[in-house]
Amino acid sequence: MNSLEEYKRLIEDSITKYSSGTEPENLHNSIRYILNLGGKRIRPILVLMGYGVFNDHVERALHQALAIELFHNFTLIHDDIMDRADLRRGHLTVHKKWSEPTAILSGDLMLIKAYELLCDAPPQLLPPMLQAFNTMATEVCEGQQMDMDFEQRTDVSEEEYIDMIRKKTSVLIGAAIQIGALRAGADASEAGLLYEFGVNIGLAFQMLDDYLDVFGQSEKTGKVEGGDVLNGKKTLLFLHCYRHADEQSKNELLSIYENRTSKSNAEKVLAARELFKVTGSDKYLYKKAEDYYHIGVNLLKSADFQRERIKPLLTLADSLMQREH
Amino acid sequence: MNSLEEYKRLIEDSITKYSSGTEPENLHNSIRYILNLGGKRIRPILVLMGYGVFNDHVERALHQALAIELFHNFTLIHDDIMDRADLRRGHLTVHKKWSEPTAILSGDLMLIKAYELLCDAPPQLLPPMLQAFNTMATEVCEGQQMDMDFEQRTDVSEEEYIDMIRKKTSVLIGAAIQIGALRAGADASEAGLLYEFGVNIGLAFQMLDDYLDVFGQSEKTGKVEGGDVLNGKKTLLFLHCYRHADEQSKNELLSIYENRTSKSNAEKVLAARELFKVTGSDKYLYKKAEDYYHIGVNLLKSADFQRERIKPLLTLADSLMQREH
Repeated sequence: MNSLEEYKRLIEDSITKYSSGTEPENLHNSIRYILNLGGKRIRPILVLMGYGVFNDHVERALHQALAIELFHNFTLIHDDIMDRADLRRGHLTVHKKWSEPTAILSGDLMLIKAYELLCDAPPQLLPPMLQAFNTMATEVCEGQQMDMDFEQRTDVSEEEYIDMIRKKTSVLIGAAIQIGALRAGADASEAGLLYEFGVNIGLAFQMLDDYLDVFGQSEKTGKVEGGDVLNGKKTLLFLHCYRHADEQSKNELLSIYENRTSKSNAEKVLAARELFKVTGSDKYLYKKAEDYYHIGVNLLKSADFQRERIKPLLTLADSLMQREH
Repeated sequence: MNSLEEYKRLIEDSITKYSSGTEPENLHNSIRYILNLGGKRIRPILVLMGYGVFNDHVERALHQALAIELFHNFTLIHDDIMDRADLRRGHLTVHKKWSEPTAILSGDLMLIKAYELLCDAPPQLLPPMLQAFNTMATEVCEGQQMDMDFEQRTDVSEEEYIDMIRKKTSVLIGAAIQIGALRAGADASEAGLLYEFGVNIGLAFQMLDDYLDVFGQSEKTGKVEGGDVLNGKKTLLFLHCYRHADEQSKNELLSIYENRTSKSNAEKVLAARELFKVTGSDKYLYKKAEDYYHIGVNLLKSADFQRERIKPLLTLADSLMQREH
């Protein structure tokens, strides 16, 4: 069985080989740029691990792994335009370094190339792989639109929020494993179970992310500490706290999130932390992340897979939950 | 054999049936909006006609026809953002009516849905159809980037310009017919020949468009007369004229295209027309359009297809060349 490092090396090699397009320069340079900004490559690794549940020759799923990585980076480029973000992993975003038109177009081309790579497989495997990919891709777009719509609303329910992050981030984690499995010839129910494992781990991962954004040790992240608070991003921490706080705390919370306060950034984050602790929103979110993690892990363990073959998936899921940043 | 009106009705019915998505509202409303702005539906009709060369049951290619129409509208939405266009067919563009983020996202979703519809076909047909679609889609993106790059340059050659419009507009015409043919089970060489017919007709069509923009009877178009001149769009008319004009005419031409003149819009267009006539650029472009048209038509006529089966394609190509607006 391959180690995480071996999986990652396979992915990095194949990205280097792949991202060597030519004309027009602006278009291909920007694609090379975003693909080489680094990152943990969790999603393409999950494709290989999904394949590895059924077959040892994980290198046969490399084009599908690359397809998932290209799709992920397509969403990053377009989301960064929509969110008016200047930086991505500490570097200029594509629309800042080149231009918005080039960023729109590079994203479009990456989506097309994702399909091209996905479909580099035996014809009989294409219908289920395409269906999995199309469903996922549609939901990711819907999730991003929901995220933007929610910014204009103050009455978002927890269920709606969880549905949004499920679509925006978790289904891609699930589909990565599912597509790897389908590429190996898995049947729909086996692949579907791996998808559900991935979606639950993805939800746990996103919730832990939201938790660590406010309560993590920021020196390791490179992110602004409490960026979600300062950007007014209403994660479960906010939604839970707002629902359970008294009137005065509610007002204070809103004044922080809507930037109607004379507090410094650091003071805002500290004040929000206190409010979250008083309502128990920190513990609530952390517990919820753990719950989704356990649902996913139990699903996988109780299925009829060889223990040795699902070990890489369980190890990766575990390592995602162990991080403190 | 179906008439053009019957083909169009089939397409309109299937667009109406298709464009009835639900949540999130902003996303699906914007897609419905652009799909129902009208247009001649030439590209999806060409898919049906390509299918009709081999098989009478053209309704079986309706999802592929819709895929091509969705792809076309995806490029319109994203191009309108890049070109900062406010109007499309006399109505507000999607990014003006909603917002840029929603326009980016609706375009993305339409591209995904295009793949979904394209691949609604027997598995053994998917590899050639996907390859045709991916090659076309890649070139369309490259063509749009070239078009934007050319705006910054004054030394674009005729060959480069023709390569750009081939990629930006003609390959989609070719691929529409090709994909219809492949959907009917045509072999690669038959489908390839129909593609070449389409590309040549597409080039003729685009060149006639550029000609009519300056020399057409504008009351019928709804476009600003001479929009290309006023927007500084350097089509073959400009490139040919600039290469053949004397120094004084060159300067006058540049002053019009770079908006360094006190002339009114109408005066600019009239002056440009005169310059084009002096260098014979009008005749040159019109002749070039006719040449490509004849290359395409001869290719098709000399191939081994039943005359009756290619008649709709020839009739449509002919009608595209007969328009005066």
